Amino acid sequence: MSNIITKLREAIGPKKVITDETELDKQRHDYWVVSHLRDYLAQQSEHALCIVRPRETADVQAILKLANETRTPVMPYGLGSGVCGGVLANAKAILLDMSAMNRIVDIDETNLLATFEAGKNGLEAEEAVAAKGLTIGHWPQSIGVSSVGGWVATRASGQFSTAYGNIENIIYAIEAVLPNGEVVNIGISPRAASGPDLRHIFLGSEGTMGVITKVTFSLRRQAQERAYSAFYTSTMAEGIEAQRQIIQLGYTPPVMRQYDNSEVRRNFAETVRDEDGLLIMVHEGPTAMVAAEKAAIAEIAKKSGLDEAPEAAVTKWLSSRNHVPSWTSLFEQNVVAETIEVAAPWTKIMDVYDQVVASLNEVPGIVNASGHSSHVYRSGINLYFTFAAYLEDKEALEAAYFDCADRVLKATAANAGTISHHHGIGRARRDYLVNDLGKGGVALLQTIKRAIDPNHIMNAGVLIPDD
Amino acid sequence: MSNIITKLREAIGPKKVITDETELDKQRHDYWVVSHLRDYLAQQSEHALCIVRPRETADVQAILKLANETRTPVMPYGLGSGVCGGVLANAKAILLDMSAMNRIVDIDETNLLATFEAGKNGLEAEEAVAAKGLTIGHWPQSIGVSSVGGWVATRASGQFSTAYGNIENIIYAIEAVLPNGEVVNIGISPRAASGPDLRHIFLGSEGTMGVITKVTFSLRRQAQERAYSAFYTSTMAEGIEAQRQIIQLGYTPPVMRQYDNSEVRRNFAETVRDEDGLLIMVHEGPTAMVAAEKAAIAEIAKKSGLDEAPEAAVTKWLSSRNHVPSWTSLFEQNVVAETIEVAAPWTKIMDVYDQVVASLNEVPGIVNASGHSSHVYRSGINLYFTFAAYLEDKEALEAAYFDCADRVLKATAANAGTISHHHGIGRARRDYLVNDLGKGGVALLQTIKRAIDPNHIMNAGVLIPDD
Repeated sequence: MSNIITKLREAIGPKKVITDETELDKQRHDYWVVSHLRDYLAQQSEHALCIVRPRETADVQAILKLANETRTPVMPYGLGSGVCGGVLANAKAILLDMSAMNRIVDIDETNLLATFEAGKNGLEAEEAVAAKGLTIGHWPQSIGVSSVGGWVATRASGQFSTAYGNIENIIYAIEAVLPNGEVVNIGISPRAASGPDLRHIFLGSEGTMGVITKVTFSLRRQAQERAYSAFYTSTMAEGIEAQRQIIQLGYTPPVMRQYDNSEVRRNFAETVRDEDGLLIMVHEGPTAMVAAEKAAIAEIAKKSGLDEAPEAAVTKWLSSRNHVPSWTSLFEQNVVAETIEVAAPWTKIMDVYDQVVASLNEVPGIVNASGHSSHVYRSGINLYFTFAAYLEDKEALEAAYFDCADRVLKATAANAGTISHHHGIGRARRDYLVNDLGKGGVALLQTIKRAIDPNHIMNAGVLIPDD
Repeated sequence: MSNIITKLREAIGPKKVITDETELDKQRHDYWVVSHLRDYLAQQSEHALCIVRPRETADVQAILKLANETRTPVMPYGLGSGVCGGVLANAKAILLDMSAMNRIVDIDETNLLATFEAGKNGLEAEEAVAAKGLTIGHWPQSIGVSSVGGWVATRASGQFSTAYGNIENIIYAIEAVLPNGEVVNIGISPRAASGPDLRHIFLGSEGTMGVITKVTFSLRRQAQERAYSAFYTSTMAEGIEAQRQIIQLGYTPPVMRQYDNSEVRRNFAETVRDEDGLLIMVHEGPTAMVAAEKAAIAEIAKKSGLDEAPEAAVTKWLSSRNHVPSWTSLFEQNVVAETIEVAAPWTKIMDVYDQVVASLNEVPGIVNASGHSSHVYRSGINLYFTFAAYLEDKEALEAAYFDCADRVLKATAANAGTISHHHGIGRARRDYLVNDLGKGGVALLQTIKRAIDPNHIMNAGVLIPDD
């Protein structure tokens, strides 16, 4: 029995420290396809030294103090839905599982604030505020399997972000425990100019700067009205240009998604029209505003040469939007697949799209290279690529995955795009981070990391390139 | 002649290094009333060792490298319009004046991006994009006398923030030079999940983390339509509650300002109605959206018991909004005055208002204690207090100032409000920062500061409490 395990049991109680092999085996990694592929091919990764399941902030403090004193690696774990390899257990590390910190701390209907412990399931959090006519307004595809703390730690985006913002626009306050065991509480007001906004040390930190223990969101009232629009796009570029017009004229439908023809055929079989793509929208807000927005956008679309498409495409998307096929079902068919979301300014985005798709199509065994947009900004837009490769030799799937991912990230970076719109960096994209931050930015991040975590106990191998 | 001055002249050229006493005397401080009062009372502060006026980023790098090697204090200076004592020269420090870095680097009408050197005058930057039908959308009262880099360094807000956001919502990219002379460029995409958003190390850093050298803004097209609304509020609380309804129902007029009766009498003499306050709004956007918003808000106001007021109050505000009386004209009348902007959640803001005004009215010599709101959020609102004290003995004005400021900040902190909505911290509020960040947050800020500026050369005495 390791000394640290004994100490952990003394510090937070034996029930919260798990060393059962079956339990440890269940939590070896997140939802990164590579980890699942290795499992499938019986290339089992090691499990953690132990799992700790804190029940309150004081437990997290005790765990980190012990880990820091003993230089024991710590790997924070929310609900395991990350897709970039941010969790990969090793036999020397404590896996800090936040799932037992899942209480609703407070819902304040006057200030539209809701505070949850970080391990709270996202959908449960949303349902709790929905019961009061409110919404967090954050709808990642993973909402049913991700934690509210994970949303913050990965800088997540929701499907309704074009109006309601990404997680950094929804967060109000963060409680976190630093690697030395000290607690910080940042965010007492809707806005402040009290120095650098320290919430951003934790937003996107992926467990490298400490452990997020509570989050407070600034909610919205549920929209009075909802309406839908859908349009055919004869080319990807035509639809992108229409979206630019719409957002730059001041309209922000919460959902605005444009699929290329390949994705229309896969996801909207009832709506396929020749080689066209599809642009779908959800409008929400006060009744009069929704009507005005929908009418104005129909006019812009018409002027942009887009034909109206059946609104049923939008309701179809709404009802099926969070369905994700299991990795294993694909491996069974000798297929590895992945989605990678990037973003770029308007003038670069078609080069990103064209070059990524062309490059993916050069990969031996490629059976799908497609994309859609799903988050729109005044100065640019994201693209969400999906690739799939089929190979006779399943042992060759991992190399095909890395070849494809490299092509997506390199073609994006070559066109001044970010290599991560909202999935984070994890292990999958760490070697590409320099494209976003430059050498100076990476060095700055390393400097901050060393200062906050001088013993380098927090989630080594993730996000931050080694010095 | 100091050795450092010789080295600076060698490094960046003699013309950019100023030691003329008259020039040095002109740039001893910012617009903090206390510095001006001390000048007025002939309690002259010392001037800097020298002023350096870099013309490009490489100059800033050379200056900071030299300063860092020689442990010489550096005080960044934009255009000197700060109001919290963020600039106060001392005889051992280099005053780094950014005003000569004032070029327009690029205006990109497709991506709605504009890049300026940090010393660019804000109004000149706005006019440059306005000539192309665009707007930065950031209208601080100081727009004509502040720099775009200063906006970022102080986490500024503009008068149209309720729709267009504060500076952190408008900024796209930041170029900065770290204390060690290295350059970082952060922000290549409209949004990224590539680790912590490092722009926030500089947003609000007030010269303590390095020198901002270039900023890129995500612009807007100028609004198609503008309209106005104005309402009388029989109590401060009634208008605050109406504003809460408006924003929480999903309406965001860019300008929404509510004045108490004292401020109506001072600023809107033509519109005074008994003891009423006044709530004014500017609506902007596509024509149909503006009409829908104005009509809906009129309905909400009616239900909230507010009477319509003349729209001329709004146009009057628009035309006179950036007029600020000179401190000296007040000192001449034996008066010291100040404005302090704070913010709090909706349920706390009336306690902040009532307690601040009541406490100020206890100060001997107080002749004004009033407030208005000017920035609205789903979860709360700001208040902008104005106080003025008259004392026979001008030497006693400074103590009266600190007494009043202390009352505003303490009453705000006692009600869970932030002690700075958008003026920053500087020297004036540094001792109160712990109310916003907690001891843990202050320690975290100090940790980051030590890591980025280990020789502690950048703007000592400002923002960050001493360890």
